[in-house]
Amino acid sequence: MSNTRPLHELSADELAVFRKEQQAAYDTLKAGGLKLDLTRGKPSAEQLDLSNGLLDLPTTYRDAAGTDTRNYGGLYGLTGLRQIFADVLRVEPEQVIAGGNSSLTLMKDVLTDLLLFGAVDSTRPWVQEEKRRFICPVPGYDRHFLLTETLGFELVTVPMREDGPDADAIAQLVADDPTIKGMWMVPTYANPTGDVCSQEVAAKLASMPTAAPDFKILWDNAYAVHHLTPQETKSADILSLAAASGNPHRPVMFASTSKITFAGAGVAFLAASKEQIEWFVKYLGVGSIGPDKVNQLRHIEFFGDAEGVLAHMAKHREILAPKFAEVQRILSEQLGGLGVAKWTDPIGGYFVSVDVVPGTASRVVQLAKEAGIALTGAGAAFPHGNDPDDTNLRLAPSFPVLEEVTAAMEAVATCILLAAAEKLAG
Amino acid sequence: MSNTRPLHELSADELAVFRKEQQAAYDTLKAGGLKLDLTRGKPSAEQLDLSNGLLDLPTTYRDAAGTDTRNYGGLYGLTGLRQIFADVLRVEPEQVIAGGNSSLTLMKDVLTDLLLFGAVDSTRPWVQEEKRRFICPVPGYDRHFLLTETLGFELVTVPMREDGPDADAIAQLVADDPTIKGMWMVPTYANPTGDVCSQEVAAKLASMPTAAPDFKILWDNAYAVHHLTPQETKSADILSLAAASGNPHRPVMFASTSKITFAGAGVAFLAASKEQIEWFVKYLGVGSIGPDKVNQLRHIEFFGDAEGVLAHMAKHREILAPKFAEVQRILSEQLGGLGVAKWTDPIGGYFVSVDVVPGTASRVVQLAKEAGIALTGAGAAFPHGNDPDDTNLRLAPSFPVLEEVTAAMEAVATCILLAAAEKLAG
Repeated sequence: MSNTRPLHELSADELAVFRKEQQAAYDTLKAGGLKLDLTRGKPSAEQLDLSNGLLDLPTTYRDAAGTDTRNYGGLYGLTGLRQIFADVLRVEPEQVIAGGNSSLTLMKDVLTDLLLFGAVDSTRPWVQEEKRRFICPVPGYDRHFLLTETLGFELVTVPMREDGPDADAIAQLVADDPTIKGMWMVPTYANPTGDVCSQEVAAKLASMPTAAPDFKILWDNAYAVHHLTPQETKSADILSLAAASGNPHRPVMFASTSKITFAGAGVAFLAASKEQIEWFVKYLGVGSIGPDKVNQLRHIEFFGDAEGVLAHMAKHREILAPKFAEVQRILSEQLGGLGVAKWTDPIGGYFVSVDVVPGTASRVVQLAKEAGIALTGAGAAFPHGNDPDDTNLRLAPSFPVLEEVTAAMEAVATCILLAAAEKLAG
Repeated sequence: MSNTRPLHELSADELAVFRKEQQAAYDTLKAGGLKLDLTRGKPSAEQLDLSNGLLDLPTTYRDAAGTDTRNYGGLYGLTGLRQIFADVLRVEPEQVIAGGNSSLTLMKDVLTDLLLFGAVDSTRPWVQEEKRRFICPVPGYDRHFLLTETLGFELVTVPMREDGPDADAIAQLVADDPTIKGMWMVPTYANPTGDVCSQEVAAKLASMPTAAPDFKILWDNAYAVHHLTPQETKSADILSLAAASGNPHRPVMFASTSKITFAGAGVAFLAASKEQIEWFVKYLGVGSIGPDKVNQLRHIEFFGDAEGVLAHMAKHREILAPKFAEVQRILSEQLGGLGVAKWTDPIGGYFVSVDVVPGTASRVVQLAKEAGIALTGAGAAFPHGNDPDDTNLRLAPSFPVLEEVTAAMEAVATCILLAAAEKLAG
């Protein structure tokens, strides 16, 4: 690459030369016939292999308490597994239930129950409210937004920051507006920015006055133990903070082993105040014969205890960290100093968030697609897929093997540069 | 037993003697300190053992199509398992999806989706209807009734007959009343009567005009292949009948392997018109990352094909048939000819339904409880647990071992006789 100065400092002629170079690089790329995918935060086959021991478990069908896990029953999940993940999530075992294979399903269940029945602190079912709004920190997780959108909520965006969502903006919104019934939240290694909610921000969210008496924080701790560095960030202790603030029923915490063991065949968890757990189980029991306890026992045997979970996560880190490092290396080497992009350097989670030249994110995705690189749609991290600045890209380097990450990222960098040159050239 | 005539033919003195005899028998029973349970239709440990091979499966994590079952995705479930159960349920594979471990959960999901979004043939979400009613054949399955009750439906009872629910009564109800949105149905070996819905009754239900354009038959074929005799009754073909009648979206069929493999760790199925399957999957996908495909592959390997399912069910029959025969033997020997009870002699399913002297069912349950025999609460087979005649008992002989069935049934017979004698003595 001939140029190393910020693009906006280039003369028109210099920019034209730069654009030509990028076009040539892109044409070469396109001719290469790549077929690579950076779209979703899926574990790689190599990561899944770490849990192949599960395929030979359980060795028995009775848990430590003597329960025949093969039969019906046990809505709360197996005690042994609740204990392990209570330790992992730093909550009390009686505040946790172990469910099926998807925390997203638990989220839908909770929201559906809130709509049809109302919460322990509701005056009526949410479906009876004329208008319902939900706060979405952006950029954020597309499936959160789609879920509340589908369930008829109007989505209200607030900015995501390095220490969590903008708590002051949220506090202002919820103080007077009873139609705002809750908020989404990925507290640790957020999707897609990798940011971590501080204890201070969490405390504000836990204690802020809300016009809705039954305001809920859906605290999706999907990446609680998904560290990419030896710095094992502790999640903010939202249940204790909320209880101490007199709002014990405000948070509902979610987690799962989807990115710990098998993505599609793991166990999901819900944690909340004891009253809220009982509320949830009451409606759960109307439509459930209990979770798959054999799979829960399989996980108990596999992990042993919370230490076993953390030791297992260290193995994931060994696979993931080089891929994330490669993303950083290529972005730095190819885009550094050119003023065409800012990106996150997460210490955990599954994503790198890249802000390209405003107005070019869709173009980058299009260019990449035509060169055989699937990227998550521009705007995916915003409600209704609408990024007002058309600037944000979400990169997910976990699934491809390292060589593919390299090839895909070099291609993405080229696409970002070409789109920027096109834009600046007007 | 000294008396062999119908109790209502006895003189007051004879009845007093009979009552004394029964009281003495009951006192002996009570002194025996039994602790037995006939409450729920749970498979026994011996039945669950038939599927212990699952604990060592799957032998690989890829299905025949090459799908890595460990990862996310595949909302419809694995093709191989859909094929097997399409054959078992006699529907087309594209009309079936394979889900999680509970068909009851699929029922709750369907009803919740109907409430919040409406069906493919709805004019609006059901929750927007001022009043919603649901038809419940009685006696029927308590969990069906509880589910619709919890979801805010008014329950309307119709009688269950030997060839299915009273279709004429239903046709009359639904013809003019648009608030009646659907009906429950256990078509084959119904809970608790064991009755089988005939093709004729199914055809009436499929074709009857309904005031509600989106009337649904929730067709819970929980016992489709759960034969107790070599006479393997075929279920009525509701999907074809409904399609042929111009009401393709009326039925939604449910089934599961809960009483085939592991009660709590099986796979549930939903079958419906292709449009309705797509409708369901659309909302399913908003809150799911796909079912547990590893468990589905485990079941594919275990069964092989539909023939494998039927061969497996024959093993269940060997265990269950002697227990059901024992129930018949004891009821016949102890109650036959006395005019105190009528009972079903099912050729499939999990229950025997007993109608005792009207007004005594609760008393029988109470007497049994005091003697250490847990029976399902009287009235459980009716909406709100309210049997207007206090006459119906549901016996579930699957879970106890054979010797316990014998002891429990002898005790139940004594309780029925004592309660009858008390009642007739005034």
